[in-house]
Amino acid sequence: MNRIITIGREFGSGGRELGKRLSDLLGCAYYDKEIIEEIAKRTQLAESYVQQIVEQRTGVFFPITIGRTLHHVHHTVGTDYMLKQYTSVYTEQANVLREMAEKSDCIIVGRCADYILKSHKPLRIFVYADMDSKIERCKLKAEKDENLTDTQLRKKIIKINKNRAKYYEYYTGKKWGDRSNYDLCVNTSAVSVKECAEALAHMLEQR
Amino acid sequence: MNRIITIGREFGSGGRELGKRLSDLLGCAYYDKEIIEEIAKRTQLAESYVQQIVEQRTGVFFPITIGRTLHHVHHTVGTDYMLKQYTSVYTEQANVLREMAEKSDCIIVGRCADYILKSHKPLRIFVYADMDSKIERCKLKAEKDENLTDTQLRKKIIKINKNRAKYYEYYTGKKWGDRSNYDLCVNTSAVSVKECAEALAHMLEQR
Repeated sequence: MNRIITIGREFGSGGRELGKRLSDLLGCAYYDKEIIEEIAKRTQLAESYVQQIVEQRTGVFFPITIGRTLHHVHHTVGTDYMLKQYTSVYTEQANVLREMAEKSDCIIVGRCADYILKSHKPLRIFVYADMDSKIERCKLKAEKDENLTDTQLRKKIIKINKNRAKYYEYYTGKKWGDRSNYDLCVNTSAVSVKECAEALAHMLEQR
Repeated sequence: MNRIITIGREFGSGGRELGKRLSDLLGCAYYDKEIIEEIAKRTQLAESYVQQIVEQRTGVFFPITIGRTLHHVHHTVGTDYMLKQYTSVYTEQANVLREMAEKSDCIIVGRCADYILKSHKPLRIFVYADMDSKIERCKLKAEKDENLTDTQLRKKIIKINKNRAKYYEYYTGKKWGDRSNYDLCVNTSAVSVKECAEALAHMLEQR
């Protein structure tokens, strides 16, 4: 069985950086954006739209209440259609992840991969950080024309993480970030992403 | 400042073993039972009684409601006396921990050390495991004459961990085992205590 590492992560905590560093150190595949591209191809939806669905960005109609109360609501063509799109994106996401896991050792960031790939017994990592540290990281990574105040950044971080939690809970029935769903949880406020990646690589190389 | 590592742990998860292994690898002090001995000396209470207080074993009168509602309850000499003992144990525990932290690098298991020593900026580890794995570990460690069934062990584990959670919450106001209180949370069901200790030692040696 291939070695699969899944990384769940709070927005602003450095989870992607950890994934990239680990894949460099271990010399294995790293999947993040590629998943979206592949889903877009298969569902024939635009990449940006798939991205919106899996990240639940602002302004996107949220399907949780529809999904949960399917037999109670009075359906309109619109909600049915949206629901179908969301479901097909999730289904294709699961297919894509399984194919990736069967191809080779790999690291997968986000996408409920810890849950979808559980039969592959992945090493499930969750990366988080204190709020101040997340704000700091967002500032360092911000585009030049993005000029958010700390308060705005805090709101943005809370919102994105709330959506990630909802998405994860909707599709897995489990609580996002709850330690029982992971093998290792790393707070990148005190332990740097670099040293965490090196310690993990060291550990995995001994296995 | 000395390097302090605190280890919070679910009963049955191997937290003590992790502490011991780390202290062997890093060559630093390891405190566990020594804390109880020192508190007993200072409070002039029996070690076994101090142990009961800090572990909230079965049959021990639990002070949380008293502490919380101090000015509402009708006091009896008994509860006043108990409360005083509990408080002095906690106070001495804090003193002992601070002295240990100031003496040398050290690893401290349990005792709300992550909270009490926060000004020392400890590396705060929390060790946990799936229930089946905790039951398995308890069986391996059981005394020869202890013959508990899985159901009995499960109950024992839940009870002890519930008490640890209450104790931690009472003295720190924080949720025991909540990832935000720790730098690293390790699930010893998938990652062995040995490899976790080695990875951590490797990381700390690079610092």
